[in-house]
Amino acid sequence: MTIQPRIGETETLPEIAFIGLGAMGLPMAKNLSQRGYRVRGYDIREAARDEIAMAGGQAATTIDSAFAGADIAILMVVNAAQADEVLFATDALVRLNPGATIILMATCPPGSVTAIGAKVQAAGFGFVDAPVSGGVVGATAASLTIMASGAAGTIARIRPVLDTLGSKLVVVGTEPGQGATAKAVNQLLCGVHLAVCGEALSLAEKLGLDMAEMLDIVSGSAASSWMVRDRGPRMLQESPPVTSAIDIFVKDLGIVLEAGRDAKAALPFAALAHQLFLSVSGRGLGAVDDSQVIEAYRALQGNARLHQ
Amino acid sequence: MTIQPRIGETETLPEIAFIGLGAMGLPMAKNLSQRGYRVRGYDIREAARDEIAMAGGQAATTIDSAFAGADIAILMVVNAAQADEVLFATDALVRLNPGATIILMATCPPGSVTAIGAKVQAAGFGFVDAPVSGGVVGATAASLTIMASGAAGTIARIRPVLDTLGSKLVVVGTEPGQGATAKAVNQLLCGVHLAVCGEALSLAEKLGLDMAEMLDIVSGSAASSWMVRDRGPRMLQESPPVTSAIDIFVKDLGIVLEAGRDAKAALPFAALAHQLFLSVSGRGLGAVDDSQVIEAYRALQGNARLHQ
Repeated sequence: MTIQPRIGETETLPEIAFIGLGAMGLPMAKNLSQRGYRVRGYDIREAARDEIAMAGGQAATTIDSAFAGADIAILMVVNAAQADEVLFATDALVRLNPGATIILMATCPPGSVTAIGAKVQAAGFGFVDAPVSGGVVGATAASLTIMASGAAGTIARIRPVLDTLGSKLVVVGTEPGQGATAKAVNQLLCGVHLAVCGEALSLAEKLGLDMAEMLDIVSGSAASSWMVRDRGPRMLQESPPVTSAIDIFVKDLGIVLEAGRDAKAALPFAALAHQLFLSVSGRGLGAVDDSQVIEAYRALQGNARLHQ
Repeated sequence: MTIQPRIGETETLPEIAFIGLGAMGLPMAKNLSQRGYRVRGYDIREAARDEIAMAGGQAATTIDSAFAGADIAILMVVNAAQADEVLFATDALVRLNPGATIILMATCPPGSVTAIGAKVQAAGFGFVDAPVSGGVVGATAASLTIMASGAAGTIARIRPVLDTLGSKLVVVGTEPGQGATAKAVNQLLCGVHLAVCGEALSLAEKLGLDMAEMLDIVSGSAASSWMVRDRGPRMLQESPPVTSAIDIFVKDLGIVLEAGRDAKAALPFAALAHQLFLSVSGRGLGAVDDSQVIEAYRALQGNARLHQ
């Protein structure tokens, strides 16, 4: 099913409206543009719109103009409320081409995605629930894992677009909300792995071990995780660059707990991880790199380093 | 420093007493034997002694006869109490060659290792604290990660033996107990990663997702961990083979919490994981494969499958 578009063949490719050009959305939109798709990018920030224009896309200054004549609209916005606003606060939706498909790729609560999907389908458009894992690195390298759900025919039609954005596409169901559910399970592991890495390294610090040496050990042993290898080194830095902020996990683990609450499933690890991210955010550090969840432990152990 | 012994050069290699031929110890002792070391293996179980004899080693029916004339004694016993008994319950220690070195490779509380190391050194022998990570797979493939501490000269002398047992040796300090401390930090991550994998998969089950598909996703995404990839598949099996039992993590996380308590470090994830392993053990399932910690979640979510 994979189409390999080349420059010169772009007339056969669907036009794409891309809403939300943040840390994830911008490199994703750029990848589509570089593979020959006509991309109209919208973001409230002018700097982000300038970047997509420089990368060969078109900058749209309104959602209306981004949607006009598009075959596919990709939403990589902050949360479900923004997605709902983009789609339904105005009548922008009707500017899409007939039979167009909305692909919601932001991390949202399963229940909200189900509701948004139902409204989109009632308006006569296709809907694919397709959240991702892999972070900014995966978005940039087009190596995202994509968890998609939607009608089989709809997914088949937009599959080349998803294949352009990621290296692994798993179709987890036919109903909107199932992709979001899979993403919630994924984020449960991501958030807990990240927070417990802070617990382990802060224990090593407290016990007088060399933290870099300890990180080297656990990066190559049965104790390893993607988070240990990716975020562990940044936990040892004083002011690491922000690739994903503490408040993203405050949000994502909130979604995990909401999914658990709706299903009446007890999730003690996720609840504990949420508390630790909340604690760091509550100290005014919500915008720092998420590796700094270790500060919750430094506060617990009496070694706090960062202060607002 | 790595010596590559070949058959025919064995007269230059130290004689090794290997105490504790269990799931980990037996393959380790076999690897030493196969690399040309003269190994005298001791275990209370006759079947284990037979196995080391069949693998080219010698079976010792007493600790005394295992120690007699050995240059190195490796202890891969169940816990610190057993190690203490092996070394000090009789006068077996004096049967070792003068200048012999004790290598304690079992997972023990740092405080106990410090005490045992002091007694061994007071008796005039070298002591290396060298716990491992990598499980039965790593023990068999000689790909263990080894966390060693001890006097630099002593470690240098026995280093070829450690290099024969593992693929990564990290010297974390010069004092007995520091290796055990590093292992505690390592086990904290292992135990939590294993238990939270149960939380994630049981949530997927509760939410109606295909568990094998969900496992495929999180094995390749930012949610991945060594435990997800190794134990995750066994969580989906009805009666998986036992490579490491629930009660091993009851013990190991107990050691982690003891190390934290001694240092006055709060370890909420480790404490939670310990409770979950205890719960499964308390239902009479302490000897089942540790992947079955997911049963604690099935009980919580009302989907319990295993019963004593």
